[in-house]
Amino acid sequence: MFYDFEKLKFHNRISLIYNDKAIGPGILRILELVKETGKLSEAYRIMGISSSKAWRIIKNAEEDLGTKLINTSSGGVGGGGSELTKEGEDFLNKYNSFTNEVDEIVKNLFDKHFGCDIIE
Amino acid sequence: MFYDFEKLKFHNRISLIYNDKAIGPGILRILELVKETGKLSEAYRIMGISSSKAWRIIKNAEEDLGTKLINTSSGGVGGGGSELTKEGEDFLNKYNSFTNEVDEIVKNLFDKHFGCDIIE
Repeated sequence: MFYDFEKLKFHNRISLIYNDKAIGPGILRILELVKETGKLSEAYRIMGISSSKAWRIIKNAEEDLGTKLINTSSGGVGGGGSELTKEGEDFLNKYNSFTNEVDEIVKNLFDKHFGCDIIE
Repeated sequence: MFYDFEKLKFHNRISLIYNDKAIGPGILRILELVKETGKLSEAYRIMGISSSKAWRIIKNAEEDLGTKLINTSSGGVGGGGSELTKEGEDFLNKYNSFTNEVDEIVKNLFDKHFGCDIIE
């Protein structure tokens, strides 16, 4: 093997497309953070985007997927909160389990194909 | 499941990095075509790039990887030809076997995670 395996890395990116429209990383990150924090405002603060941008991302994704992904209640005791709809939760879970399994398997395949053979 | 699985697709892109420098799709395509056709001129014709661009891609990749990837002989009976060096062939084979296996497995994982459950 002529190359130094320590210096060889890979980068793998998966994107989803629904009805010919990309499901961007933005909506998936928003779903993740809303699930974690229970607050949409916290999600876009962490992501460093404006509330109007966050809403646009959500509206576009909901329109593309044809379903509501996030429920938001404003006011009430303790202020408003957000939570994923059943569909939002379902989609996020599938995406996470898919990409986590891909990451792990691709890492193993990379080692298998490019890693050091014992006999060389 | 709220979405129509027929409309859901994925796109997976793998890139390799050596010594913090990207090994672009260009050099891998050139290696592939030189192996197939035995002629560098045929490789860049099929790719629709100039010979100077092809040479630049090769020189950069050879410098980055620290090894010669393609041998070219000019003239002789039947004109000149090009062939992969042992290292070029080795690297291309590893890349192809890695990405082919990734493609197949990611396709299966996509079906597994997003595909239709029988009970729903």
